[in-house]
Amino acid sequence: MLRDLALPTTLSARAGTVTLRNAAADDLDDLMTLLSDDPISAARGDVADAEDRPLYAAALRTIAADPANAVLVATDEAGDIVGTLQLTTIPGMARRGSARLLVEAVRVRSAVRSGGIGSVLMRWVTDVAARDLGTSLVQLTSDADRTDAHRFYERLGFSASHLGFKYRVPDA
Amino acid sequence: MLRDLALPTTLSARAGTVTLRNAAADDLDDLMTLLSDDPISAARGDVADAEDRPLYAAALRTIAADPANAVLVATDEAGDIVGTLQLTTIPGMARRGSARLLVEAVRVRSAVRSGGIGSVLMRWVTDVAARDLGTSLVQLTSDADRTDAHRFYERLGFSASHLGFKYRVPDA
Repeated sequence: MLRDLALPTTLSARAGTVTLRNAAADDLDDLMTLLSDDPISAARGDVADAEDRPLYAAALRTIAADPANAVLVATDEAGDIVGTLQLTTIPGMARRGSARLLVEAVRVRSAVRSGGIGSVLMRWVTDVAARDLGTSLVQLTSDADRTDAHRFYERLGFSASHLGFKYRVPDA
Repeated sequence: MLRDLALPTTLSARAGTVTLRNAAADDLDDLMTLLSDDPISAARGDVADAEDRPLYAAALRTIAADPANAVLVATDEAGDIVGTLQLTTIPGMARRGSARLLVEAVRVRSAVRSGGIGSVLMRWVTDVAARDLGTSLVQLTSDADRTDAHRFYERLGFSASHLGFKYRVPDA
C-alpha cells in the first residue's frame, strides 16, 4: 500500500538534499505552478490558471483518499517544492499475476533541472518504493518529443520496449 | 466507478455477437489460457502453467475487490471466452486534474483474431466506458514488436504520442 511507504525520506542529489513526502492540500498552488513549468504540459492546458484551481484541488483530494494513488513532492532545504511525481499501484493478471507500479506526471522545477533531483526521485521509485510495494514492474510513458527524458529513463535502467497510445475522449 | 458500468453488454462483431462482462473466479483457467495464447506474453512467462495458478487466482481476487480495477471477458454465442482486457481508472493532477482510463492486457483468442472482436471491445472502451466513467483520456502501451496492434489502435483513433518505458525490478 502506498500509504505504508516510509515517507518522508531524505535523498541526496547533486543539487542538494531533498525531502520526499506525500503532497498536502496546501501544496496545491506550488503543484499547479510546477505542472505548468514545462512547455509540453502547458500546451496540454496545464497553465496554472486560477480558474482551474477547483479542478486541481478536487483531483488532489481524490488522490489523497485513494490507497492505490499518491502524489509526492520533493522539497529543497528551504522547504520549497522542486519536484513531483504520481504513483499508482495496479494489480494485474499478465506476467503471472504481477502488480505494477505506474509513474505519472514526473516534474522537476526548471530552475533546478540537471541537478540530479529527477534521478534520485526515480532511483527511489525503482529501488525503494517498488520493492517495498512488491511490484515487479515499474512503468511510465513519456511524450515522444521528450528526447532528453528518454535518455534519462534509459540511464536509470528503463527500457523503451513499448509504444504509448493515448485516445482523447471527445467532449460530449 | 468501474463497478457501475452497465455490464454485461452485447456487442456485434463481424465474427458474431459477443457478451462483455466482468470476469468471475471460475473464468481463471480460460483467462490463463488466453494470456498464454500469444507469443510475446508467453515469452514473458504467461504459459498457463498449473503451478502458476495460485498467482493468477490471487491477482484475479485482488482485482475483483478493487473498485479502480476490472478484468473483463468477452464470450461468444456458445459462452466461450474469446477476449479479455483489464481496465484501471487513475485520478491525476496533470491535464487540469483529469482522470484517465488505462487499458492493459488486451487479448483476443488467436482462432478468432481478425474477426473484429478486438475492435468492438476497444470501441466500447473509448465510446461507452470512458464516457460513463468521466475519464477524458484512454491510454495503453503496446509492445514495440506488436506492429499489427499499433495499426489497429491507430485505426481506432489512438495516437502513438508516447514511448512506454518499463523497468523490471530485480529479484531481491
